[in-house]
Amino acid sequence: MYSREELRDLIEKSYAGQALHKKPAELYQPISYMMQTGGKRLRPVLALMACNLFTDNIKDAVLPALGLEVFHNFTLVHDDIMDKADIRRNKETVHKKWDDNRAILSGDVMLIQAYEYIATSPAGVLTQILKLFNNTARQVCEGQQYDMNYESRDKVSEEEYLFMIENKTSVLLGASLQLGAIIARAPERDSGLLYDFGTKLGMAFQIQDDLLDSFGDPDIFGKETGGDIKSNKKTYLLIKAYELANAKQKDSLNRIIAGEFNTEKEKIQKVLAIYESLGIRHHATRKANEYLSSALDKLDMVDIASERKSNLKEFADVLKDRIN
Amino acid sequence: MYSREELRDLIEKSYAGQALHKKPAELYQPISYMMQTGGKRLRPVLALMACNLFTDNIKDAVLPALGLEVFHNFTLVHDDIMDKADIRRNKETVHKKWDDNRAILSGDVMLIQAYEYIATSPAGVLTQILKLFNNTARQVCEGQQYDMNYESRDKVSEEEYLFMIENKTSVLLGASLQLGAIIARAPERDSGLLYDFGTKLGMAFQIQDDLLDSFGDPDIFGKETGGDIKSNKKTYLLIKAYELANAKQKDSLNRIIAGEFNTEKEKIQKVLAIYESLGIRHHATRKANEYLSSALDKLDMVDIASERKSNLKEFADVLKDRIN
Repeated sequence: MYSREELRDLIEKSYAGQALHKKPAELYQPISYMMQTGGKRLRPVLALMACNLFTDNIKDAVLPALGLEVFHNFTLVHDDIMDKADIRRNKETVHKKWDDNRAILSGDVMLIQAYEYIATSPAGVLTQILKLFNNTARQVCEGQQYDMNYESRDKVSEEEYLFMIENKTSVLLGASLQLGAIIARAPERDSGLLYDFGTKLGMAFQIQDDLLDSFGDPDIFGKETGGDIKSNKKTYLLIKAYELANAKQKDSLNRIIAGEFNTEKEKIQKVLAIYESLGIRHHATRKANEYLSSALDKLDMVDIASERKSNLKEFADVLKDRIN
Repeated sequence: MYSREELRDLIEKSYAGQALHKKPAELYQPISYMMQTGGKRLRPVLALMACNLFTDNIKDAVLPALGLEVFHNFTLVHDDIMDKADIRRNKETVHKKWDDNRAILSGDVMLIQAYEYIATSPAGVLTQILKLFNNTARQVCEGQQYDMNYESRDKVSEEEYLFMIENKTSVLLGASLQLGAIIARAPERDSGLLYDFGTKLGMAFQIQDDLLDSFGDPDIFGKETGGDIKSNKKTYLLIKAYELANAKQKDSLNRIIAGEFNTEKEKIQKVLAIYESLGIRHHATRKANEYLSSALDKLDMVDIASERKSNLKEFADVLKDRIN
């Protein structure tokens, strides 16, 4: 079995070994830039881990797995235009470094490139993989639209929020695992269980991100906390706080969001105080743990010797340590 | 054999019969709007005609052909953002009617939807069709980037211009015909010849469009002439004029483009006068006819009884009548 580091390395080397079309440079520079900013290569690594559960011959899964990474980066390039985000992974975003047009068109080519890699799936499973990928890609776009819709709304329910992050973020993790399993010719029940495992893991990840942004240790979190509060982002925490707040607390939250406080520090402290008084940290931790535990249940049910699942379990354990 | 009208009707009915995902409405409204603005459905009709050359059973080609139409419309939605175009087919463009974000994300979903339709190709030819479509989609994006590059350049050669329109416009026509032929299980040589036929026809179309914009009868052309001259667009005509102009004529063109004239009418008249003195209309007509004749040669070489080619020949004849 391959270690996580070996799989990540395999992905990096495969991408570097691809003969990239290079002309016109205006189109391909932003793609290289975006793909080189790195990231954890989470999706292709999960795909290869899932494939590796069932077989030691994972080579057929490498390029399709790369397609998931290129697709993910495509969504980031276009989302950053729509969200007017200037910084990603400590570097300028594509539309900021160049301009919107370059980011739109480079993103389009990345989506096509993702399909090129997906299309290298073995002929016997190609139709099934395409269906999975098409459905997932569509859901990710729908999730982004819901996210934008929610920004301009006063109130978003917990259910609506969970539905949005499931589409925008989680299903792609589920699909990554399922893709790897399908290419390994895993039984349909197992590949479905891995989809559920990945999707639920993704939900736990997202809620944990919301938690860390408000309550994380900046040294471990890797960036300053409080960013979501500063920008009035409708996170799980804020949505839950509105749900549980009494009239007075709601009024406070409304005034804070409307911009009552002069300093950002004061704003963050005040919101955190409301969160603490409502037990929001506890609620969010419990919700993330529910998803995590439900994810692990699905992994347990996959009909493969437990020791082969160690890589995937480790993924979930790292998450668990960060939540609690 | 199906008539052109029957094929167009088949495309319209098939699209109307597709259960479109409808939520979130913010994402799907612009797609319906764009697809309903009509157009000639040129690409899917060509695909079905090519399929119909070899077989009377064209049903396997209908949805993949629809994918070509959705793809074409995706490129228009994104190009209109990049080109800041407000009007298309006498209606507001998507980004103008809504906003850039809606146009970016709806366009993304249209590209995914195009792949959904392409993926319905029969399993036996799916890999081949995907390769054709992926290559073509990438070329179309590259063509759009070259087009944008040329806008900001002083000088573009005839060769560069032809390379740009081949990628941006023509290869999709070629790929449409080849897709239909592949689904009909046509011999490889024939499907390749149809690709060449379509690509060369596309070149003739584009040069003809440039001609009509300057020299066309507005009643037949369907819109006012002179638009390209007004906007200093680097058309085949302008590029050829710069190539053939003497120092004095070049200087005139430079001053006109820099904005020497007060009225648009005067500007158009002056440029047309230079075109006429250089025989540009003749040069462009000859070039379009060369492509047209070369296209027809390719069609002739397709190993199918001549009478089955009548639909495709008619297409080319209509073009010929418009050029000459």
